[in-house]
Amino acid sequence: MAGQGAAFTIGVDYGTNSVRAVVVDCADGRALGTAVCDYPSGTEGVLLDPRDPHLARQNPADYLVGLTTSVRGALAQADTETGFSRDRIIGIGVDTTGSTPLPLDGGNRPLALDPRWRDSPAAQAWLWKDHTAAEEAAAITETARRCAPEYLSPIGGTYSSEWFWSKIWHCRKVAPDVFEAAASWVELADFVPSVLAGVTHPGDIVRGVCAAGHKAMYSEGWGGLPSREFLCLLDPALGRLRDRLYTKAYSADRAAGVLAREWAETFGLQTGIPIAMGAFDAHYGAVGAGVRVGTFVKIIGTSTCDIAIADGHQRIPDIPGICGIVPGSVMPGFYGIEAGQSAVGDLLRWWVELVCQGREALHAELSREAARLRAGASGLLALDWNNGNRTILVDPRLTGLIVGQTLHTTRAEIYRALVEATAFGARAIIARMEQYDVPIERVVCCGGIAEKNDLFMQVYADVIGMPMLTAGSPQTPALGAAIAAAVAAGARAGGYDRFEAAQQRMTTLGARTFVPDPAAHAVYDELFALYGELHDTFGAVSATRGNLASLMKRLLALRERALA
Amino acid sequence: MAGQGAAFTIGVDYGTNSVRAVVVDCADGRALGTAVCDYPSGTEGVLLDPRDPHLARQNPADYLVGLTTSVRGALAQADTETGFSRDRIIGIGVDTTGSTPLPLDGGNRPLALDPRWRDSPAAQAWLWKDHTAAEEAAAITETARRCAPEYLSPIGGTYSSEWFWSKIWHCRKVAPDVFEAAASWVELADFVPSVLAGVTHPGDIVRGVCAAGHKAMYSEGWGGLPSREFLCLLDPALGRLRDRLYTKAYSADRAAGVLAREWAETFGLQTGIPIAMGAFDAHYGAVGAGVRVGTFVKIIGTSTCDIAIADGHQRIPDIPGICGIVPGSVMPGFYGIEAGQSAVGDLLRWWVELVCQGREALHAELSREAARLRAGASGLLALDWNNGNRTILVDPRLTGLIVGQTLHTTRAEIYRALVEATAFGARAIIARMEQYDVPIERVVCCGGIAEKNDLFMQVYADVIGMPMLTAGSPQTPALGAAIAAAVAAGARAGGYDRFEAAQQRMTTLGARTFVPDPAAHAVYDELFALYGELHDTFGAVSATRGNLASLMKRLLALRERALA
Repeated sequence: MAGQGAAFTIGVDYGTNSVRAVVVDCADGRALGTAVCDYPSGTEGVLLDPRDPHLARQNPADYLVGLTTSVRGALAQADTETGFSRDRIIGIGVDTTGSTPLPLDGGNRPLALDPRWRDSPAAQAWLWKDHTAAEEAAAITETARRCAPEYLSPIGGTYSSEWFWSKIWHCRKVAPDVFEAAASWVELADFVPSVLAGVTHPGDIVRGVCAAGHKAMYSEGWGGLPSREFLCLLDPALGRLRDRLYTKAYSADRAAGVLAREWAETFGLQTGIPIAMGAFDAHYGAVGAGVRVGTFVKIIGTSTCDIAIADGHQRIPDIPGICGIVPGSVMPGFYGIEAGQSAVGDLLRWWVELVCQGREALHAELSREAARLRAGASGLLALDWNNGNRTILVDPRLTGLIVGQTLHTTRAEIYRALVEATAFGARAIIARMEQYDVPIERVVCCGGIAEKNDLFMQVYADVIGMPMLTAGSPQTPALGAAIAAAVAAGARAGGYDRFEAAQQRMTTLGARTFVPDPAAHAVYDELFALYGELHDTFGAVSATRGNLASLMKRLLALRERALA
Repeated sequence: MAGQGAAFTIGVDYGTNSVRAVVVDCADGRALGTAVCDYPSGTEGVLLDPRDPHLARQNPADYLVGLTTSVRGALAQADTETGFSRDRIIGIGVDTTGSTPLPLDGGNRPLALDPRWRDSPAAQAWLWKDHTAAEEAAAITETARRCAPEYLSPIGGTYSSEWFWSKIWHCRKVAPDVFEAAASWVELADFVPSVLAGVTHPGDIVRGVCAAGHKAMYSEGWGGLPSREFLCLLDPALGRLRDRLYTKAYSADRAAGVLAREWAETFGLQTGIPIAMGAFDAHYGAVGAGVRVGTFVKIIGTSTCDIAIADGHQRIPDIPGICGIVPGSVMPGFYGIEAGQSAVGDLLRWWVELVCQGREALHAELSREAARLRAGASGLLALDWNNGNRTILVDPRLTGLIVGQTLHTTRAEIYRALVEATAFGARAIIARMEQYDVPIERVVCCGGIAEKNDLFMQVYADVIGMPMLTAGSPQTPALGAAIAAAVAAGARAGGYDRFEAAQQRMTTLGARTFVPDPAAHAVYDELFALYGELHDTFGAVSATRGNLASLMKRLLALRERALA
């Protein structure tokens, strides 16, 4: 680290419901200013369709409003700190949800900002948890299995309905006018940096390997995006789109651009400071939580994203059901390994808010009551699949299951069973990684649930049988983005030349640590075996499981016919 | 019917939470007076143990208070009707829950009335839904399979924890002092008539074949109760008890006794009028609903009891999983066939009151919302086993299951799925009966749920694919008991000589009839097939179903260890 005195960076974190900006001291990672802007549109920022529970979009205008508001707010707060000066901001980093692609016009403007497309759901941003493209995902998987199995190896063997190509293809089918009007498509993680850099043509967007490699089947191994021929097999229009996208995606060892004059003026910052490569919230969150080889980072919020890294110089095997292994996606020089669970906080929210019709107070009450129960005492067991299964089974159309109810089963017992279900899901992912020699020596948790819910963390420790450590920062994605900005700026500007050095100074562990109770862990070993039986049967892992393997799907087929 | 002018009888119906008396006109079954007395003890009349959800007892003192209060109330109301006179009451009939055995002292007094035993749970009446004797039931089944398989044939192949011998044997194990102090044991259905008849020694109680045949393995085929040797195999103390019970049980073609002077004075009735043979609520309920060969009566309340009858002159086969086939148990001259579901209204009550924390208004709201859903549209499927499975699997330790939840699943959808689950359970019972050639030409429903919940009845029609007729009387068990009293009095006294003749005049159908919707029925045909897969897998019907067959039991074992 160079000696020019104080240096600061800004991390901007685009979540599902809001955007948060943080001004960070490069010396120790301390936050000097934080501001959150809730997206103004839709239901808590999400555009829903009452007729289709799979649809989840966002208004791109919210991203721009949120950028200005949150960064201004964080800077205003930092201004009150002694020793801070906007002149000493040396870089900006951005992380976002993903895969959240949106269509652009030829001027790098979101189509949805054009009055012609403002009311078209397909012209909005397709939020990560949009599941409308299940058919397309299945067809992509099927086609790749037949013609290009190499595309599936690094993504766990199954292409997801949450991802880039599924969503764009679905747009092409349901809203061909939007598809035709789009000059290009961009992941939100690449879009925001391109806006800050003043990019006025989609061809000039610098694309990060994080979104490209994890969601768009990009790999240098086969020359970038999937081949034109492969995309034409799906739909010739997708083949044509390929030429308007990109040929190269980059790791965070280069910047996405430099701050454009208009944004520098808006924020009172120096023009030309670097904008770090955009990445997904989980990836920069892992950086902010101190990920390193042997550390498994769990970002636990509405859903959970798990991140590990492995030495980039050794070839590591593909891991079935692990949804992404991409060189350089988390930090340059390492394989980024991503897994996840589709509903964690959302599962508890479903129970407390939709079913039990409660609010925060009921969350707290059920959590307290559930904490008094002993492992196994409810006789309940649940599958955590109310929003599908993202890792291991990679099937967004699986559904939830609860078994063991009596006439005396309470809602607190079910609450705890749902927490346990997500913990079993988490343990299944760790077991799968260890089975493929990804070392896991410590688990560091961050995210809203990890911050707030002690019951949850203790159940995880007891189920997984390892201490649950917590990250020192309550906003690890924004901190990770700020770290990426410090690395983009480099040591000479007051930042760092390497992520490892930046993490060493800018990240800490939190004081809260949850240690497994051996007796509870022994009970959970047995319950986990039962969970495994339900998982493998209803998840159709084994062909010998009989008819139940397809039961959830047959229920969905009946549902679709009934609603048709 | 003779021509002495007006004649009336009294039916007294002992339910789970209250006792109801009805004064009925023998000419047309019209109720002239009705009174209900809620049991004063426990939680809505049931003595519970917070440490053991399987325990359900009743205070025998409540039965005596309830008898006096309800009969006096019904008579007082009838007194206001023109043409009624207490002198023209020609008989009394009694029905009760069962199997609800209670221990007696040598003077035919319930042990629990003795201050020495007042606080002993084992000295109380063991309510039908007490499930503490699961181990004893399993041992009785196992011993009978080995040594006396004939005992199991008429009761579906499995002896239940809800039944006479299981409960008494459990008492002998957990409260040997109570067991030793008991001069005899009696079913509530036989006890109340014996009280009205002034019986002062348990040996003088006239026992009905309904309780004996359905719950105590009584059959004339093997000389009455199970042999002393068989009972000694279980426990020599049970063998000794056999000698203090009874050798003969009777069909309702004879009376249980005549009204004792003290009760005649209490009620202002004639001394010496006949008291009909006591029977279970479902059996006399079926009589009151107009049961005949080809009519399937469903008494739908907290649980459901199904009653059919078959010609008593033809030998009918034993039906696996159907819990009782007893000559004369419903009406003299016919086989009485009994089946049932352990939780129906209770299942909805669990959902609405315990989980959703609502009251009557929420029952109505969820029922209205659920009625707007189409068959199959929720994507949910449930097993109705929160209180075990009484018919077909005959396993009180099975538990509930719900599958198909998403993050958008509402409590109204779950409410409907639970209603559907009980309808699938009902259809499984009908299918089993038809498979064994019990003719089912019409279904007549009665009981609280059938009276009140139109959604419920329509779902049943749609699932079963037959019209759901309703009984004309809202109180069929009490009406059936009153019909039995009219038959006990006989035509010469102003009653009837045969049940069929009495039913012809005294029972009607209600105006509410629910006709299947063909489209919904087609969807339910498919859902019923899926229900069958869950049923057979988790109910361990097929040995090839793998580990899931024991999953519910392994969860319970974990639960018991956790709570130990």
